[in-house]
Amino acid sequence: MAWNTDLRWRLPLTCLLLQVALVVLFGVFVRYHPDADAHWADQKAAGNVSSDLDNEFYYRYPSFQDVHVMIFVGFGFLMTFLQRYGFSAVGFNFLLAAFGIQWALLMQGWFHSFQGGYILLGVENLINADFCVGSVCVAFGAVLGKVSPVQLLIMTLFQVTLFSVNEFILLNLLEVKDAGGSMTIHTFGAYFGLMVAWILQRPNLQHSKGRQSSVYHSDLFAMIGTLFLWMYWPSFNSAVSNHGDAQHRAAINTYCSLAACVLTTVAVSSAVHKKGKLDMVHIQNATLAGGVAVGTAAEMMLMPYGSLIVGFICGIVSTLGFEYLTPFLEARLRIQDTCGIHNLHALPGIIGAIVGAVTAACASADVYGKSGLVHAFDFEGDKQSWTPSMQGKFQAAGLFVSLAMALVGGAVVGVILKIPVWGQAADENCFDDAIYWEMPENTALHPEDSALKTSEP
Amino acid sequence: MAWNTDLRWRLPLTCLLLQVALVVLFGVFVRYHPDADAHWADQKAAGNVSSDLDNEFYYRYPSFQDVHVMIFVGFGFLMTFLQRYGFSAVGFNFLLAAFGIQWALLMQGWFHSFQGGYILLGVENLINADFCVGSVCVAFGAVLGKVSPVQLLIMTLFQVTLFSVNEFILLNLLEVKDAGGSMTIHTFGAYFGLMVAWILQRPNLQHSKGRQSSVYHSDLFAMIGTLFLWMYWPSFNSAVSNHGDAQHRAAINTYCSLAACVLTTVAVSSAVHKKGKLDMVHIQNATLAGGVAVGTAAEMMLMPYGSLIVGFICGIVSTLGFEYLTPFLEARLRIQDTCGIHNLHALPGIIGAIVGAVTAACASADVYGKSGLVHAFDFEGDKQSWTPSMQGKFQAAGLFVSLAMALVGGAVVGVILKIPVWGQAADENCFDDAIYWEMPENTALHPEDSALKTSEP
Amino acid sequence: MAWNTDLRWRLPLTCLLLQVALVVLFGVFVRYHPDADAHWADQKAAGNVSSDLDNEFYYRYPSFQDVHVMIFVGFGFLMTFLQRYGFSAVGFNFLLAAFGIQWALLMQGWFHSFQGGYILLGVENLINADFCVGSVCVAFGAVLGKVSPVQLLIMTLFQVTLFSVNEFILLNLLEVKDAGGSMTIHTFGAYFGLMVAWILQRPNLQHSKGRQSSVYHSDLFAMIGTLFLWMYWPSFNSAVSNHGDAQHRAAINTYCSLAACVLTTVAVSSAVHKKGKLDMVHIQNATLAGGVAVGTAAEMMLMPYGSLIVGFICGIVSTLGFEYLTPFLEARLRIQDTCGIHNLHALPGIIGAIVGAVTAACASADVYGKSGLVHAFDFEGDKQSWTPSMQGKFQAAGLFVSLAMALVGGAVVGVILKIPVWGQAADENCFDDAIYWEMPENTALHPEDSALKTSEP
Repeated sequence: MAWNTDLRWRLPLTCLLLQVALVVLFGVFVRYHPDADAHWADQKAAGNVSSDLDNEFYYRYPSFQDVHVMIFVGFGFLMTFLQRYGFSAVGFNFLLAAFGIQWALLMQGWFHSFQGGYILLGVENLINADFCVGSVCVAFGAVLGKVSPVQLLIMTLFQVTLFSVNEFILLNLLEVKDAGGSMTIHTFGAYFGLMVAWILQRPNLQHSKGRQSSVYHSDLFAMIGTLFLWMYWPSFNSAVSNHGDAQHRAAINTYCSLAACVLTTVAVSSAVHKKGKLDMVHIQNATLAGGVAVGTAAEMMLMPYGSLIVGFICGIVSTLGFEYLTPFLEARLRIQDTCGIHNLHALPGIIGAIVGAVTAACASADVYGKSGLVHAFDFEGDKQSWTPSMQGKFQAAGLFVSLAMALVGGAVVGVILKIPVWGQAADENCFDDAIYWEMPENTALHPEDSALKTSEP
Repeated sequence: MAWNTDLRWRLPLTCLLLQVALVVLFGVFVRYHPDADAHWADQKAAGNVSSDLDNEFYYRYPSFQDVHVMIFVGFGFLMTFLQRYGFSAVGFNFLLAAFGIQWALLMQGWFHSFQGGYILLGVENLINADFCVGSVCVAFGAVLGKVSPVQLLIMTLFQVTLFSVNEFILLNLLEVKDAGGSMTIHTFGAYFGLMVAWILQRPNLQHSKGRQSSVYHSDLFAMIGTLFLWMYWPSFNSAVSNHGDAQHRAAINTYCSLAACVLTTVAVSSAVHKKGKLDMVHIQNATLAGGVAVGTAAEMMLMPYGSLIVGFICGIVSTLGFEYLTPFLEARLRIQDTCGIHNLHALPGIIGAIVGAVTAACASADVYGKSGLVHAFDFEGDKQSWTPSMQGKFQAAGLFVSLAMALVGGAVVGVILKIPVWGQAADENCFDDAIYWEMPENTALHPEDSALKTSEP
Repeated sequence: MAWNTDLRWRLPLTCLLLQVALVVLFGVFVRYHPDADAHWADQKAAGNVSSDLDNEFYYRYPSFQDVHVMIFVGFGFLMTFLQRYGFSAVGFNFLLAAFGIQWALLMQGWFHSFQGGYILLGVENLINADFCVGSVCVAFGAVLGKVSPVQLLIMTLFQVTLFSVNEFILLNLLEVKDAGGSMTIHTFGAYFGLMVAWILQRPNLQHSKGRQSSVYHSDLFAMIGTLFLWMYWPSFNSAVSNHGDAQHRAAINTYCSLAACVLTTVAVSSAVHKKGKLDMVHIQNATLAGGVAVGTAAEMMLMPYGSLIVGFICGIVSTLGFEYLTPFLEARLRIQDTCGIHNLHALPGIIGAIVGAVTAACASADVYGKSGLVHAFDFEGDKQSWTPSMQGKFQAAGLFVSLAMALVGGAVVGVILKIPVWGQAADENCFDDAIYWEMPENTALHPEDSALKTSEP
């Protein structure tokens, strides 16, 4: 049966209602952080601030812009690989991220930046909002092509909420370290999305099989996304780390891990093909697994060779996942994971959480220095009595909390999205921009679909 | 009648003459700002400079690079949406911007950085030159596809000159604040370009109607431009703001405004389509209106919710403009606005100027702090006696000056460009790269033009 | 005869062996620079570090990210202009760069950052590793389409090694200045690559002539690479310059040189075409020559007009090179230079070396200031007795050393790569992704190849 995919009233009303609500909530709750407030000049006059350079802006803004590019161009274009779903990949990612960052500013603000009745916004909030939305972009990858923009907005609404709760539990209650979000962003986002995809499983997806593959230029567009994610990942993992050595170290570790990941991805991609040919799907995705997997430990003394080992392993695991696990999950568990986020975010996220727990547990004043150890893990105040091994245990606990939150939350949200009123497309119309977009004339089909025969040597 | 579009001598001579003139003028007038001069080391030795970090470079350079990307990739690719005008969109934008920034360094330098007979160049000059050229890129959008590169160079020559005069009147004589250039860049650039387009109106443009639409992949290329403009706009609006809180605040406000703008753009785009489908033209353009409209007020205490409201309104206004105003302007006023800059830059620019005037007029020591208010609006020296309401009035005056300069200037330049010696194409050859570019074999037409039938569900 | 291009075991084994070796070497030799080490907190506690802002990270990281984009997106997409070699252009560049930066961290580390038995990694090492790989990306341009990924990895292994030796000779023994690498990166990389291409010359390349041209959209993809290289080049030339004025000045000079280069490139491109049409090959490449040619002198007091003159000349030289020299080299010397790196990197690199030598020789305390001159050229310690003219002579010597190293090294490596066991393709299969990549269905040929007739006006 064909569903009603006319969004004329559903989409506009959803967008406007959400945006109006955001305006009101911002009006009631959101103000500027002192570093972004005009009173800064008075503080300087009063000598509370020695120099403009002490402004958090100069420590974090360049990294923020890199992260921003990853969310909108990185994730957006990474998903344009489908031959005729490029408008939706970039456009819906744009829509959900633009809504998500606003809602995240509020949710995370209430938990982390609430002072005197107000959420005080600074550049760090902007980064964290982008991070939070990053987990939604991850989940989007699992349902790409099978959901309507209305469903995406609702999924974003719930996922950002749950993300913030989970993040609060991990960072504030369990006091774990997760600067790059292996647990909070990737593991949570991936299993949340996979759960939603599982609930929304479509029995007759083979009807749109033809559109589930790429075409030559759509694969090149996807590489734009891949490369911007890959290049800026060092900024992603270091953006909210402590000033100075932690930011510096996080960038170096991520750089190393990602480099190693590329070589093992290529190695496995070639090894699993009968003629040793490379597969664009692997290059587009598995090369990024190294960034996911050092998300937790990047700011720790993982050591450059430690980063290389993590990247080495993840390139292999991720590529094998695309080759063997994804088909298995689809055939046996009916988990239709469009972009293979299980291989790019779920598995490397878990590996990253474990690496982080072990690295933390192995920390010592010897390696970190006396003040260094205290500074790196905030072993002061209420954590004064903590030991590295305790930190390691709590890190591990954080992983399980994230998994539980993701699976339960994803299941509930999946059920909500299953209600057939959100304008979702019928199985035979999935992966098709023409359902939700006014298409350019004569391009309902991609040129590459036309009668061009393969000329394999 | 077919015009002579052979540029073999016209284009080379124009480029070489202009570049030689620039070399000579730079030789006579341009030197380095102290922050970029090797004497810096002597100043440090003399204790005039405490640390290398005091160098303006570290406050502004990251923002400069973001702005640079907006001008060359942002505007360049935004205009590649036409099915067979991509070479010209990116290539001519590249050419006019490369010439424009050099000429702007001189024009703005004489007005703002002239000391002891020399223009002293620093990173802030580079940013301002990019800004100035931004207004030319805006105007280019109105005449895209209908002018030759020679005409563009001449338009750039005059527009940069007028821009600098107008900017001087606003910033130095009227002493208005316009960090993000709602007035100086967008309002001025848009009405200048529209005026030129009106003078150069082409009666038989329907002859090239077929090429005025997009194709699937050209719309994806355009999204590259859209997203880089959208992501880096916070840097654009904060790049030349005061150090510290002002830069910080400008980035936050722009981030908020742009996010809200995306949701209302999507809402209206869907609402105006009979089947509720989204239109790529709206997503590519109207989503940016929020950045234009906080250009003046971003560095002021607009408040995050204030930014959201501005973005909210502009997404609606801009999208409705594309849907109803552009056709009207073309049909009734014969203004053939290829990229719809009236909706993306003109209207939001005016809104931005008004928002800025009102925000300035409402400023108070309460909201800004005592020193904060003085610092934010330079209420010292010759402005010591100024009140916020005076500032507001002058802001408003700045808008009318910009409009007048743009309309008169655009009319004059339009007449100059009408002289049929600049190699412009005939109406039936507009929007066609083949006129000015050596085309790859077999691609005079886009593949998508070939016999692929639409398969709307 | 058809070669065996099955890489199933060759590529995986090569990647894994190299990566395992890197892991071991990193484990033995690589640790963190004090600025990236957790002991930083102890140093602060001990008062050895006054503020986190003194961390090298904040001086260099934004420039590093720009350089990173140039290497992976810039070079990668610049080479996607070929109609059906886009996967290989982006993918192999990704692979060789990911391997190259790791090997470069070790090679350069042993020469420049080796302390107490360890290589101490900091952000500056990351930038230098990217620079080193940049020279490999340059060389890749000469052999693009004609070598296998295994050959590229082996070429990278040797070229990075030789690069580091040559760089050590220039910077440490001859003590020349070459911040932007006109000599070490561009001249060396280009002649190394041209030598390899000459040794690997293919007699029957005309068999794959059809695939050596571009198609409409592949030229647009290439412009993404061109523009990111062009925009971020100021960061490239300033990334490792001295803090403060030198970084600032290098960015300004590069900005000016590149702008002038665009106008003269356009002028010549139009002038050499019988109908005055522009050629995308020139716009994609020659516009960048200005950045190459100020690589050495950018941080010196070249003066803005000096930069314009350099850019002016290089735009002309480079474009003429594409038009007349490349065909000559191929016809007479059998140097098959796919991307024309001789015009973009070799000639401008030599010009840059000469400009640098002259600028250094003309330096004076008058222009630089007393401390400025000493600071700019390190005329202290063992160089205390040096004069600018001496510096100039050593700069010139550096050029010849680089040329010698490149030609000899390239010849040797070329011979090694000629051994027919690396999976290289037969002449008739060059420039074809299908040899090494699993292709999307129905896209072995590009759509644009299909029966679309030209409609030149």
